[in-house]
Amino acid sequence: MSEEIGALVEQIAKVEREEQATVPETLNEQLEHLDAEQQALLLEALPLEGRLQQWERIPEEERSDVLVELGADTRLTILKAQPFNALESLFSGFSPEDLIELSDDLPDEFIEIALRQMDQKQRQYFEDSNQFTEKQIGRYADHDLLILPQNAKVYDALRLLRRHIPECTDAIFLTDRAGRYAGTVPVQSTLSTPGHIPLTELTDEEAKPLAAETSLEDSVDLIEKSEYVLLPIVSEKGMLIGRMTLKDGLQILREEHEAEMMAQAGLSEDEDLFSPVLRSSVRRATWLGINLITAFLASWAIGLFEGTLQQVVALAVLMPIVASMGGIAGSQTLTLIIRGIALGQISRGNLGPLLIKELSVGGLNGVLWAGAIGLIASWWFADPMIGVVIGSAIAINILAAACSGVCIPVILDKLKIDPALSGSVILTTVTDVVGFVTFLGLGTLLLL
Amino acid sequence: MSEEIGALVEQIAKVEREEQATVPETLNEQLEHLDAEQQALLLEALPLEGRLQQWERIPEEERSDVLVELGADTRLTILKAQPFNALESLFSGFSPEDLIELSDDLPDEFIEIALRQMDQKQRQYFEDSNQFTEKQIGRYADHDLLILPQNAKVYDALRLLRRHIPECTDAIFLTDRAGRYAGTVPVQSTLSTPGHIPLTELTDEEAKPLAAETSLEDSVDLIEKSEYVLLPIVSEKGMLIGRMTLKDGLQILREEHEAEMMAQAGLSEDEDLFSPVLRSSVRRATWLGINLITAFLASWAIGLFEGTLQQVVALAVLMPIVASMGGIAGSQTLTLIIRGIALGQISRGNLGPLLIKELSVGGLNGVLWAGAIGLIASWWFADPMIGVVIGSAIAINILAAACSGVCIPVILDKLKIDPALSGSVILTTVTDVVGFVTFLGLGTLLLL
Repeated sequence: MSEEIGALVEQIAKVEREEQATVPETLNEQLEHLDAEQQALLLEALPLEGRLQQWERIPEEERSDVLVELGADTRLTILKAQPFNALESLFSGFSPEDLIELSDDLPDEFIEIALRQMDQKQRQYFEDSNQFTEKQIGRYADHDLLILPQNAKVYDALRLLRRHIPECTDAIFLTDRAGRYAGTVPVQSTLSTPGHIPLTELTDEEAKPLAAETSLEDSVDLIEKSEYVLLPIVSEKGMLIGRMTLKDGLQILREEHEAEMMAQAGLSEDEDLFSPVLRSSVRRATWLGINLITAFLASWAIGLFEGTLQQVVALAVLMPIVASMGGIAGSQTLTLIIRGIALGQISRGNLGPLLIKELSVGGLNGVLWAGAIGLIASWWFADPMIGVVIGSAIAINILAAACSGVCIPVILDKLKIDPALSGSVILTTVTDVVGFVTFLGLGTLLLL
Repeated sequence: MSEEIGALVEQIAKVEREEQATVPETLNEQLEHLDAEQQALLLEALPLEGRLQQWERIPEEERSDVLVELGADTRLTILKAQPFNALESLFSGFSPEDLIELSDDLPDEFIEIALRQMDQKQRQYFEDSNQFTEKQIGRYADHDLLILPQNAKVYDALRLLRRHIPECTDAIFLTDRAGRYAGTVPVQSTLSTPGHIPLTELTDEEAKPLAAETSLEDSVDLIEKSEYVLLPIVSEKGMLIGRMTLKDGLQILREEHEAEMMAQAGLSEDEDLFSPVLRSSVRRATWLGINLITAFLASWAIGLFEGTLQQVVALAVLMPIVASMGGIAGSQTLTLIIRGIALGQISRGNLGPLLIKELSVGGLNGVLWAGAIGLIASWWFADPMIGVVIGSAIAINILAAACSGVCIPVILDKLKIDPALSGSVILTTVTDVVGFVTFLGLGTLLLL
């Protein structure tokens, strides 16, 4: 399904390569059929010049929607290339919800332009949402709700339902005169109840509104557990400020997954395929720098044994094996524990047994691979003592890795640092240093 | 929210430690309030003995639901500890949908027991779903649908809606006499149309059913793009076999994310915190073995330069830095390209410009870090030539990493191998070997 974007990129590249003045009719037709999300994917996949040309091909009335779907870096490259009056008409197409999505990474001057195009009520919506942080569900509240006053009757509900049901709706919300949330009425129950019955008699007592301060992650959990396809979002003072739907939940999950994947490689989630070179370089340099420190630590550990290395060069040759086995075994334990922490399953109550279990697994694999690698190394360097040294070092390093794999994420979590981000760097540093020191230390003791 | 599982684990551990005969009333009350999913999380978080005791505390009528929620390894440890007659009553609580979820990792003998407890229709549902693979949405079709014959009128729809609306429903589906899918009627339109109008006049021509063979991933995309909260699933022959809801979409996304995270560390998605030691060890050994091969390749590359290392031991000390910088820079490019491939954005049309952009970013960072590390190494070993050697090696390795980061995932994808799984191992092998050969090769040329 998504493959077609790649095919379009190829056709557009061909048009440019052959310097054709106009886009062939067949390609044009395909481009016209793209929805806003696909247009955004296409723009992100095009190098800067091609991207701006493709932008011009998008009908003006669709451009605002495409802009909302774009990754932040791509969006900025396009906005910066627009003349001022184009911006004004572009920004007049934004709903307050769209503008909130954009505002996280849009310079203030652009926000100002957009706000000037809105009416009083829309500006109010924007200000209301803007009170919440990027991690709170209140920020992303959308306003497509079925709302009735607390004293409404079933026939009021039916009249409302007949007029229009917004996408992703299976409940009507009641409010008091001040606009405070006063209950959830399932659509189903209004259909099977006589018209004169007050809606308050149909409210679902089990239904709980979503506090606007709830984190995005918890919001997804809550809507997944609820029996509805949407939840009302309620401010601290009890005001009904909007809704969250299951579809929002899907989008939040996707974005969190993507951000996590990027962050694990030290990338910004805004980074697109053709983010400006300088911008990308600066961002990535930070992560390289952090990892450099850990690499220097490993070097320092090796440096402690310069004398040994000079006499037994085989040790230098085998070093990467000790480090690699420790790193891999450790990251297996680490991944398991990080998932456990994310699911709330780890506590002092099971930390002891967990450590024992991981040390047992490490012990078994340590013995297995220590034996295998010891034999290979003995044969390679025709010296059984080399085999003993590397075998012992690997067994010890795998055990140390199991221990670190359990403890590092637990400690990071206690310190409120996300173990999914920094756990792996710290773990590798530990397994490198422990591995090199054990291996070269044993070498010094047994081989000199 | 999920933290409470950890707290419960701690309290249960305390009860066991103090060898209390019964669980305190306050704890018991908390345990009774858990839903099936939380019960499952708790069981997974408990070591084997505690797990079986906690299982006994779950009311019998809730046990089937908890079993469905459990991770595969935990489920097996519990089932194996049950006497045969307990299994029969346990398995009589399964719906065909539940049994399908379990059947992927349940031994056939258990499936047989469960099928024997079902009536003819349920067995048929199970067989129908079981035709599809674990990756096809047809396998997970659920049967809670509003269905009317093609010739039904609006008042038939209203009668149906008044009786019962299943969770996550905003459309009624029409079928012909043979049970073939014949159209989607939005609930909304039945509410605003006179009763005598045939439903066929209200079918949404834009609504497309989901082919049962569709992959889980594509199904989530399709339901996200649709205007409904559920989609009808239709077999190759056009039969309406079930539905997929937005909630199913959320669950699929979560499971795919988790499986991917585990697979990247060479873990099985079935692995639980307290999976049996032997089982875990065997599974993890495979991944350690694969990585061992790549580590031996790196060692072999170093082994080519034994003579050089003997004379300039500083090179042995600095080796990890060259490898680490290449690996980190490469994995940044790799992550970006893997995301691009997943979104369908990469094709021959933009591969050239992408390579140029990544080489530019690599070039900038290469020059920056080559300079910094070169200076530090010169000072550390009081030899400017060491600085020149490591600086050049790092610059070359970062460029090679950028190139590999673009090419490796593209090639893997062409070979139909998931680059998210094996890309990183292959990349590290390349950057290790290139790094060591360049570094030690330059050292041989310039320092001897």
